[in-house]
Amino acid sequence: MKRVTFFVSDGTGLTAEALGRSLLSQFGHIDFEQITIPYINTKEDARTVVKRINKVAEESGLRPIVFNTIVNEEVREVVTQCKGFTVDIFDTFIKPLEKEFNADSSYSVGKSHAITDHSVYNVRLSAIDFALDNDDGARTRHYDKADIILIGVSRSGKTPTSLYLALQFGIRAANYPLTEDDLDENHLPRVLKEYKNKLFGLTIDSARLASIRTERMSNSRYASFSQCEAEVRGAEAIFNKERVPYLNTTDISIEEISTRILATSGIERRLQS
Amino acid sequence: MKRVTFFVSDGTGLTAEALGRSLLSQFGHIDFEQITIPYINTKEDARTVVKRINKVAEESGLRPIVFNTIVNEEVREVVTQCKGFTVDIFDTFIKPLEKEFNADSSYSVGKSHAITDHSVYNVRLSAIDFALDNDDGARTRHYDKADIILIGVSRSGKTPTSLYLALQFGIRAANYPLTEDDLDENHLPRVLKEYKNKLFGLTIDSARLASIRTERMSNSRYASFSQCEAEVRGAEAIFNKERVPYLNTTDISIEEISTRILATSGIERRLQS
Repeated sequence: MKRVTFFVSDGTGLTAEALGRSLLSQFGHIDFEQITIPYINTKEDARTVVKRINKVAEESGLRPIVFNTIVNEEVREVVTQCKGFTVDIFDTFIKPLEKEFNADSSYSVGKSHAITDHSVYNVRLSAIDFALDNDDGARTRHYDKADIILIGVSRSGKTPTSLYLALQFGIRAANYPLTEDDLDENHLPRVLKEYKNKLFGLTIDSARLASIRTERMSNSRYASFSQCEAEVRGAEAIFNKERVPYLNTTDISIEEISTRILATSGIERRLQS
Repeated sequence: MKRVTFFVSDGTGLTAEALGRSLLSQFGHIDFEQITIPYINTKEDARTVVKRINKVAEESGLRPIVFNTIVNEEVREVVTQCKGFTVDIFDTFIKPLEKEFNADSSYSVGKSHAITDHSVYNVRLSAIDFALDNDDGARTRHYDKADIILIGVSRSGKTPTSLYLALQFGIRAANYPLTEDDLDENHLPRVLKEYKNKLFGLTIDSARLASIRTERMSNSRYASFSQCEAEVRGAEAIFNKERVPYLNTTDISIEEISTRILATSGIERRLQS
């Protein structure tokens, strides 16, 4: 039987989800059904949410867990009166912060994801453009403008990571696939040599790589375990020989790959939000 | 004078940041310096953090704000003893949840961003591949497999939004730029007609569009205000005439565009995390 969890927000619900999920992940043996309800801005909206929560409570006989990030006090209090177990994020933290800052909070709705400064969007956009223009080794002439260049075999996680680095941190990440020729020669491709201090390697377990490649091109040499194993071994040999820092992406998420790259390489974010 | 804020985590720090920023955004008149310290897993790590926080406290004469999402109690308590104002996320919420679930939490480190199930990564990866393969109207033959097709003039926010939808929600978003020819004819391009129920329009204020286009190609007709204004007017006319739901992206973030599209269109996420 699944325990139902609601993420209720006056904005996107992304904060409620992020916090709620990291709390729930501490209870790995419980099976949760997760429902996000964004843009709850009026008491009427809130009453509809309460009905939905109460219906689940009655039908399941278990209190739903409700992560509530609504800022407006009147709207929030309507939700608090539901028959769920409410985790009230603003009530718990906003008031102590007001005291600490000796200032009233704005209680503005959804402000954290509103653009107050277009320069933030510009930084993200230009990082995304950079990642797309410099994906998959298609072009290398802009590498002098890259913050980082991800290298690794095909499907080791380079493209998702470069896009995440762009979207989340505004970082300009190029990526370059190590081909069989590169691997056979057991050294860095010439074009990468002058950017050696920007290189970061991604590697992956051979079996997992074969499974990912099979999704794209089943029953091919490209997706065979032996081919994957040879390429991975070759890539790691180059990383070790050339002292390129690298990370195994097999069991970690794109978020985790990205933040570990930042922590290891020391490159600075261009965005704080 | 900036008020210094630390996001201290045993994992990526993304949860601490997301929560912390939405709380801080309620104090818009205060200028914050934000510092993320991820991967604090030992008491020794924590003591180094405490020294850094205390140094800021002494030099600035103001208590830094410390958002703490460390799960391990011993490590967390070291950080709590700093001279900052600590917002202790797990201590506040984990214990009541243990009581509610009548179960101990796993206190596992960084679990929320670890991959426990590769199928999640597969869904994200295939959504990213889809967004890249179907970016900018380059190909339209896979539109039957799209969850949504974003349309709008060049630089109205389609590409960043389609990538965010893929990364965050596993949604397969194609995007198609409305060209001058489309706009002159004042109707949907033929290729889009059979997918009308998948279309979602993005629009943007002309002045903002001109500014974005100028970044890419300054002093061009493409970036001129009059051209931007004509294109935007043409696109909105098509959205209205063909009853395509649409959104003005000028002052909202990519997160907000994406979640509003979900809320408006009713399309289902393929990912819950």
